[in-house]
Amino acid sequence: MSTADIDARSSWLSPEDLESTRARVPMVYVEAVPVRVDDRGRVTSVGLLLRQGPDGRIVRALVSGRVLYGERVRDALLRHVEKDLGPMALPALPPAPAPFSVVEYFPDPTVTGYHDPRQHAVALAFLVPVAGDCSPSQESLDLAWFTPHEAAADAVAMEMSGGQDRVLRLALAHAGVLP
Amino acid sequence: MSTADIDARSSWLSPEDLESTRARVPMVYVEAVPVRVDDRGRVTSVGLLLRQGPDGRIVRALVSGRVLYGERVRDALLRHVEKDLGPMALPALPPAPAPFSVVEYFPDPTVTGYHDPRQHAVALAFLVPVAGDCSPSQESLDLAWFTPHEAAADAVAMEMSGGQDRVLRLALAHAGVLP
Amino acid sequence: MSTADIDARSSWLSPEDLESTRARVPMVYVEAVPVRVDDRGRVTSVGLLLRQGPDGRIVRALVSGRVLYGERVRDALLRHVEKDLGPMALPALPPAPAPFSVVEYFPDPTVTGYHDPRQHAVALAFLVPVAGDCSPSQESLDLAWFTPHEAAADAVAMEMSGGQDRVLRLALAHAGVLP
Amino acid sequence: MSTADIDARSSWLSPEDLESTRARVPMVYVEAVPVRVDDRGRVTSVGLLLRQGPDGRIVRALVSGRVLYGERVRDALLRHVEKDLGPMALPALPPAPAPFSVVEYFPDPTVTGYHDPRQHAVALAFLVPVAGDCSPSQESLDLAWFTPHEAAADAVAMEMSGGQDRVLRLALAHAGVLP
Repeated sequence: MSTADIDARSSWLSPEDLESTRARVPMVYVEAVPVRVDDRGRVTSVGLLLRQGPDGRIVRALVSGRVLYGERVRDALLRHVEKDLGPMALPALPPAPAPFSVVEYFPDPTVTGYHDPRQHAVALAFLVPVAGDCSPSQESLDLAWFTPHEAAADAVAMEMSGGQDRVLRLALAHAGVLP
Repeated sequence: MSTADIDARSSWLSPEDLESTRARVPMVYVEAVPVRVDDRGRVTSVGLLLRQGPDGRIVRALVSGRVLYGERVRDALLRHVEKDLGPMALPALPPAPAPFSVVEYFPDPTVTGYHDPRQHAVALAFLVPVAGDCSPSQESLDLAWFTPHEAAADAVAMEMSGGQDRVLRLALAHAGVLP
Repeated sequence: MSTADIDARSSWLSPEDLESTRARVPMVYVEAVPVRVDDRGRVTSVGLLLRQGPDGRIVRALVSGRVLYGERVRDALLRHVEKDLGPMALPALPPAPAPFSVVEYFPDPTVTGYHDPRQHAVALAFLVPVAGDCSPSQESLDLAWFTPHEAAADAVAMEMSGGQDRVLRLALAHAGVLP
Repeated sequence: MSTADIDARSSWLSPEDLESTRARVPMVYVEAVPVRVDDRGRVTSVGLLLRQGPDGRIVRALVSGRVLYGERVRDALLRHVEKDLGPMALPALPPAPAPFSVVEYFPDPTVTGYHDPRQHAVALAFLVPVAGDCSPSQESLDLAWFTPHEAAADAVAMEMSGGQDRVLRLALAHAGVLP
């Protein structure tokens, strides 16, 4: 199934259908933590989007999005990275299909601490090195790069929502650069 | 949400609703490869269920099942292991939430080679050591244990379906016991 | 090679030989983060040893030790866990041979931030659930259990040395319980 | 410590010193499985060196080599990849420090099945995507690329030695492309 076909089918999923589906089963999501690496593969900085959250608050966010019916996880990951970082980001998707963590978002914020008021989502989280020019899409206000030290600090955590600051720290730990 | 609540809600999902949902979004699945380990954690044998496949053929199968709305991945994994191996299996679920692989089943067998005629399923695959007595549930005809060498052989692969023989070999590789 | 043989050979490695070897090649180490898990495999607490560091200071420490010539990593891991937590700890060594991280200790504390004044050590770090009674060996003054939240706090970090507080946080992240 | 310093120190390690050290402690090794990936990160082919083994036999081999005193694992990995694949290979070292597996080579081939007549070596195995031009070094006779299907076949396994064919299959499994 081509990307165009998937988009067509997806656009066919009306808001009402999406709504009713979300009330029945967990949604499959991918989450990407975009990073810059040096020539030895070591993470030197982490990219965070600046966008308007569902509640109107301006938040820093990871690349995140739904896996569509018929779409491969890898294709969804690339689609969302390109959507959020632009077509010139040159992402290097990891060869292994296993995510570094699985993050479970619930409408009830007390279940796991990961919170999504819209749905129960099971997100596969990946570290994605990007080598090219990143330009935030129209949905985002900005894209900013942080050192691992800055990214793990409370100042950044307070600007994130739904528990994504914790996903970010798990990513830094996976890369061995959690301060 | 208690297991009873989840089951109640799940049983509320009528066959028609499940059918229509399956046509819209990928389903979240867990897959468990039950193993016996020695006192050093090394895998000594692998358990495979014997059951009737959707097409009536008798096949060997991994523990596998859907994650319900509102249910944690860990709870789904335990629920399906207990359902298939009985309440005395004493499974030791892995402390890390990351699966050893993500397996993507499609109605079209040519996409990934993993095939599920009913749906597009994204399965999180885990290795699950079991220390207790395993007794196959009424849905299964038998549970048989194989050495890693036997489990990786063509004879076993030919008795499995949907590509689960490949998942089994990925599990053996992850455990470092693929011959 | 039996454990007795390995110990015999090891005891044969005189302090002078060990000293000269340490100046020539990196040493292979294993590090274990002992954890208690609930019946769903989720980490509920982390065990830390209390011992006298090389500089006389009392520190909290992970289980750690050298892999001997001829010894398997798995056997070294079990040996050090039993040495530090006692023979009744009932550790469940992970079935997969891959550590959750590799930690590189250098005599120069500026290389990686992981510091061992005696040697260059490459440590394979594992999470090890223990189900039995843990009693600290004579080399340790105490063994104390902390919730993930407590273990990740600055108060604990300040009581650890050589960068082991960072290894501890990597372990919590791997288990998905880093606050 | 610069690479030049490390090389100087290493060259200082006389054959006699290396010999005596190898008899005392396990050696730290890195092993790289060079792969080509498509724009979605999926492994499309695997590179194998053709070289003369210690016994004079011509074998296919992975990139492999020792970690020197004072050298970081990442630096050793890059050094050996460049030594074996040439300076234009453009390897993308993985951001995470954890190897996909740990392979234990023993002089006694019956311990793990991984065999190195010279020493006990603990090898950290990594998948390394290369994007540039690979030219085998003077130590190698050739570098050939295989599809995952070809690489997993018995024909290739029979041309490898010391158990490296098994490491290769573990790498394919980790990448989700083991047939």
